[in-house]
Amino acid sequence: MFENILENVKSNVPLVHLITNYVTVNDCANIVLACGGSPIMADEISEVCDITSICKATVINMGTLNERTIKSMILAGKKANELSHPVIFDPVGAGASRLRNETALTLLKEVKFSVIRGNVSEIKFLASGISSTKGVDVSDEDVITNDNIDSTINMAKSLAKTTGSIIAISGATDIVTDGNKTYIIKNGHSMMSMVSGTGCMLSAILGAFASANYDNILDATACAFSAFGLSGEKVYKRLCEIDGGTSTYKTLLIDFMSKMNYDILKDGMKVEVR
Amino acid sequence: MFENILENVKSNVPLVHLITNYVTVNDCANIVLACGGSPIMADEISEVCDITSICKATVINMGTLNERTIKSMILAGKKANELSHPVIFDPVGAGASRLRNETALTLLKEVKFSVIRGNVSEIKFLASGISSTKGVDVSDEDVITNDNIDSTINMAKSLAKTTGSIIAISGATDIVTDGNKTYIIKNGHSMMSMVSGTGCMLSAILGAFASANYDNILDATACAFSAFGLSGEKVYKRLCEIDGGTSTYKTLLIDFMSKMNYDILKDGMKVEVR
Amino acid sequence: MFENILENVKSNVPLVHLITNYVTVNDCANIVLACGGSPIMADEISEVCDITSICKATVINMGTLNERTIKSMILAGKKANELSHPVIFDPVGAGASRLRNETALTLLKEVKFSVIRGNVSEIKFLASGISSTKGVDVSDEDVITNDNIDSTINMAKSLAKTTGSIIAISGATDIVTDGNKTYIIKNGHSMMSMVSGTGCMLSAILGAFASANYDNILDATACAFSAFGLSGEKVYKRLCEIDGGTSTYKTLLIDFMSKMNYDILKDGMKVEVR
Repeated sequence: MFENILENVKSNVPLVHLITNYVTVNDCANIVLACGGSPIMADEISEVCDITSICKATVINMGTLNERTIKSMILAGKKANELSHPVIFDPVGAGASRLRNETALTLLKEVKFSVIRGNVSEIKFLASGISSTKGVDVSDEDVITNDNIDSTINMAKSLAKTTGSIIAISGATDIVTDGNKTYIIKNGHSMMSMVSGTGCMLSAILGAFASANYDNILDATACAFSAFGLSGEKVYKRLCEIDGGTSTYKTLLIDFMSKMNYDILKDGMKVEVR
Repeated sequence: MFENILENVKSNVPLVHLITNYVTVNDCANIVLACGGSPIMADEISEVCDITSICKATVINMGTLNERTIKSMILAGKKANELSHPVIFDPVGAGASRLRNETALTLLKEVKFSVIRGNVSEIKFLASGISSTKGVDVSDEDVITNDNIDSTINMAKSLAKTTGSIIAISGATDIVTDGNKTYIIKNGHSMMSMVSGTGCMLSAILGAFASANYDNILDATACAFSAFGLSGEKVYKRLCEIDGGTSTYKTLLIDFMSKMNYDILKDGMKVEVR
Repeated sequence: MFENILENVKSNVPLVHLITNYVTVNDCANIVLACGGSPIMADEISEVCDITSICKATVINMGTLNERTIKSMILAGKKANELSHPVIFDPVGAGASRLRNETALTLLKEVKFSVIRGNVSEIKFLASGISSTKGVDVSDEDVITNDNIDSTINMAKSLAKTTGSIIAISGATDIVTDGNKTYIIKNGHSMMSMVSGTGCMLSAILGAFASANYDNILDATACAFSAFGLSGEKVYKRLCEIDGGTSTYKTLLIDFMSKMNYDILKDGMKVEVR
């Protein structure tokens, strides 16, 4: 499973256009580089279409959206659709404000996304229009457990069918589905939630993974989830050895992604197909 | 002194709304997480009130203010006041430009702040309307010394009384006062001024500390100053052992805050009450 | 060669006004501090002239330009010219979009730059108006080789004469010229291109170097290139010892710049004068 996916990113060096928030943008840039892609950030209305055109994938993250950048997101998404580039959507904080809710729904209407990646509260908002989010984190009632995993998978599959997008839910257990085939991924470490932007980083690399593995974006998405989560596990062990804290953890996480390869992934991936 | 304050942050996990500058925003997010809070950044006029409403504290930092975000700061501050949430103000660069001066004074008029944290030049500007700042750093004439500490405390106490805010001045010697009780804190290390955003980070965590210790925000503020300064001391020792530089110092500083607890604080705090 | 240049930065502690992108701004702030300068970021139209006036140098980086910040760049550049402050221009992504192309050419017309620093594709665009850029990276055809170095130097010298600016091209081989004297610098490591913002960081410190060495900005620029490249070499060795990745590499790079001195530079610089 997942042969060549990581290597394709490194050999293609896909240019990825990111319209993303200013909180975690630097980590997004660096992790795209670490995986083998090349990031470009540009969010001005009058230039996004030019930038989208020279790139191979577009990532739209609404973390610190504003009226200007919302227009840019729509324009860039439509242009990427025209060019048949993969487009990734990270609906950060969907459910947390009317502006975010409206923007998320507008983007879903105007742009065809290859992958929508969020936490379970954000994805539930997209599926139901009902908000249960706790800011940018998952609300307690939404946390995926053995009891609700089947209903969560069904919700994701249904949203995948309605939108025509791969739905990718991050959590202790990740769910990645195109509506038919579903990957359940148990890589990852709770320490990752102590670092701002791990979700954003994952969305960012999905741009590179999807572009370099255009024929199988479902596998590319699941592979990125597993590789990133596995990095989180591996570096937690290292962190304990050196008695480090949350900031060193972030550094090590990006480091590990810059050295990730198929041998490491094959050994450590915890992926189930349904 | 300061029993339970750190623990309250970790057990409450307060959501903190930050309208802050794009220079140090990532470090602010990560240090809020490190202390046990949960940060949300949102600065668009049409959504700040929604975000303020789902949070428990608001931090306004005018480091890279613009016409749009100034409006958002005022709206968010007023909304937080309505909801009786703690509101922290970091008047970055007050004194350095007419826009900053006017914005700082407008915010003081429109919003009731729980805590105003700045360097001595910034606080002096708020107290006197007279600018002596050297950009975002303290001007030489303002540095707190044995000769001027009494007059600086009096200035801070007087501003605390006029504004009804706790005044918290960062420097080699920190002053935290509500106008009646004053904490003088000598934790910290000069290396902290070699890292961009240590002041912003301190303001950011004050949001979490004040929310989780709502009944005693004065102590919570002094505790945050002491804990952050003590982290700066402890990691300087570590930095010398590994022959590190300024960037490793920042990483270790956030690391240490993620592992700070009351036993460490009690052993190392250098706090005097007047 | 380069005696006193590094020391001048540390003894002058020049205040540097940066209008720069939100991707790498934090690294820019921290590396200016690491070299001995003091950074201030401010990009609002109504305050940039005030901030420029209290600073000693201005750095304009168009990495994430927008209509608002473009106006600020022009205003700040003109004000810095009036005050005879050094002004550095980093034309990030020139060639990649019409907005960037027009902005770069407008800035060249409206502002007299002390130094223009870019990769070879960006500089070629400024020289020829012809775009060959690959996003924010160098296009393959532009990479400096033994075969094209002479023509690249001639292009740079010619642009230096037309603009009256020092032209500084970053790459495996760096070229720094005022049109008459040319420095060819072979310090650096390919790992630097795996970190987002190494170019931005170099432009940022040029503000501090040029201000503190106002009488010899050509040497100051070449010295900054050599010192930064040498740091990249030195820390690559360290990185291998500790088996680190790209994020640790960035941390070590800023660390090393915070400890760089003339003895280290003298020993390691690879600089040829033509």
